[in-house]
Amino acid sequence: MRATTIHGPKDIRVEHVPDAVVREPGDAVVKVELACICGSDLWAYRGVAKRVPGQRIGHEFVGEVVEVGPGVGSVKVGDRVIAPFVWSDGTCPYCVQGLPTSCPQGGFWGSGTSDGGQAEAVRVPFADGTLVRVPEGVDDALLPALLALSDVMGTGHHAAVSAGAAPGATVVVVGDGAVGLCGVLAAKRLGAERIISLGRHEDRAKVARLFGATDQVPERGAEAVEKVRELTGGLGAPVVLECVGTDESWSTAIGLVRDGGRIGYVGVPHQAPNLPTGKLFPRNIGIAGGIAPVRTYLPELMADVLAGRLDPAPVFDRTLPLDEVADGYRSMDDRSALKVVLTP
Amino acid sequence: MRATTIHGPKDIRVEHVPDAVVREPGDAVVKVELACICGSDLWAYRGVAKRVPGQRIGHEFVGEVVEVGPGVGSVKVGDRVIAPFVWSDGTCPYCVQGLPTSCPQGGFWGSGTSDGGQAEAVRVPFADGTLVRVPEGVDDALLPALLALSDVMGTGHHAAVSAGAAPGATVVVVGDGAVGLCGVLAAKRLGAERIISLGRHEDRAKVARLFGATDQVPERGAEAVEKVRELTGGLGAPVVLECVGTDESWSTAIGLVRDGGRIGYVGVPHQAPNLPTGKLFPRNIGIAGGIAPVRTYLPELMADVLAGRLDPAPVFDRTLPLDEVADGYRSMDDRSALKVVLTP
Repeated sequence: MRATTIHGPKDIRVEHVPDAVVREPGDAVVKVELACICGSDLWAYRGVAKRVPGQRIGHEFVGEVVEVGPGVGSVKVGDRVIAPFVWSDGTCPYCVQGLPTSCPQGGFWGSGTSDGGQAEAVRVPFADGTLVRVPEGVDDALLPALLALSDVMGTGHHAAVSAGAAPGATVVVVGDGAVGLCGVLAAKRLGAERIISLGRHEDRAKVARLFGATDQVPERGAEAVEKVRELTGGLGAPVVLECVGTDESWSTAIGLVRDGGRIGYVGVPHQAPNLPTGKLFPRNIGIAGGIAPVRTYLPELMADVLAGRLDPAPVFDRTLPLDEVADGYRSMDDRSALKVVLTP
Repeated sequence: MRATTIHGPKDIRVEHVPDAVVREPGDAVVKVELACICGSDLWAYRGVAKRVPGQRIGHEFVGEVVEVGPGVGSVKVGDRVIAPFVWSDGTCPYCVQGLPTSCPQGGFWGSGTSDGGQAEAVRVPFADGTLVRVPEGVDDALLPALLALSDVMGTGHHAAVSAGAAPGATVVVVGDGAVGLCGVLAAKRLGAERIISLGRHEDRAKVARLFGATDQVPERGAEAVEKVRELTGGLGAPVVLECVGTDESWSTAIGLVRDGGRIGYVGVPHQAPNLPTGKLFPRNIGIAGGIAPVRTYLPELMADVLAGRLDPAPVFDRTLPLDEVADGYRSMDDRSALKVVLTP
């Protein structure tokens, strides 16, 4: 089968690899219908996150189950499924409490020698714990929206939930990548009344407005902080979604959050910024979030997509065949594309 | 009148200073009945927190109102009152929402040229916003318990509330100072089922047990983390109170919190440790707390003290006349005393 591999910075290839097969009783093999490229894949693409040459990549996919091990009970051959961006056993204390990202048996697609999602097929460990079955008869037109639930929509939702977005809230979203935009959509879905989106790219701002942003702030850094404070009676916003993960974005988030407010953060801290307690303490600023337990959110978000109440698909602005995946990385790296769908 | 002043590291004096008087219409003057020394005063005593020579010190006191300005309506001459450790106007958006520590007109006793609590009397700005009246006829024997509400008990409560202590919870308290011990008591009051207290001082451990600690861990650092993990099925505790504020205590707190758990922190970050997002993110560890809005908690905690349901007084293990305040600092600095009461 064909799968995307990464050989070094900016060296993305599609190669012929051994077919995905069931190896453990709990495995399933999923034939990928749609996959996509994530902003976090760019950290590997740029060489910031290290990879072994030839390692698989991609962690978002929907597809059809084509083989199951004898221990699999929740999905069967022919089922359409969504895979969250980590697999998990579904039975450990963390999975049971809804934090599958801390599952001791869990792992990331494309880590080590595991399959990646940007491929024709994927071996899925712990299929019962990991995969979410899509009901039969769902319109193919909904596939991109369902694909977004594998990561970005669930991650934006995690930021919004962690920050305490609730009916009537004033929310600021730092970051206009796909996750930030999904954060806007999640805040809207949770009933936020005012949603201030930071970002200077007009194409992204359009999506933010479509998703529910009521105010947009193109300024950055200290100027953005000042602008948000102007918009919030000088006090800042009680609910802030940090969807970038850099020192600069954190500094902005801390600057514009209202005293006593909370920052829900999901920006992957590749450069691992440190949070200054000296700045948080006197203002009682809370921090919550982290890697999103997307598997836990999937049923509820899928129900809304299927009912027509939620549509994150507009985060995708380009579709390419798998063979052109390298071009997809290039276009996301130079920001000419927001998020690229791949069709194997 | 006599007041405690600080002139440099380890140089605490009692000096004659001008009498406290009403200067603004909203002021009251409180004749101090009981004051005390705080662990956070030791940062100034040790020279870590800078002070101007001759500056007043002390931020915890109960006493009697002896003069009020024409704008004061909530207390009158003769009332017994508790002062929280910051004053606040009671009318700004932050005061109204219950975060008086962020009041733009608020301030700390002993900051700048303001009066300190370790004195015969104190000028109280914004008396209506700041002071809490004690009902008439309260037994003098309850005064130490009420004094503890001016800071340490309210601060321990803030840690417990911020960390999410709730009925049935398993809670770990990092720090066996007066605030940590009050954190134990607050967790117990909020219904925690299991309370693990860290600390190696037997006299403090006794108070912790009295306050509700069910387990005690004398180990420190990595050994304490290991011990707490043993006690919690390997997973750590979902609710952690960080009551110290140093790099080491934070590292311990992060080490022993369960993935998905929350650290409520009230340890004053004099050395301002930075929190490593790289360690928090993959484990979904939340951080909440900061400087405690004690004024907000005072009515509820006072009601419990007066009803005999709450008694933080055992955090005080020594009483000295004001004139011997320097000896009180010495004994807290060398840890021969836990917390010292002063009688002017």
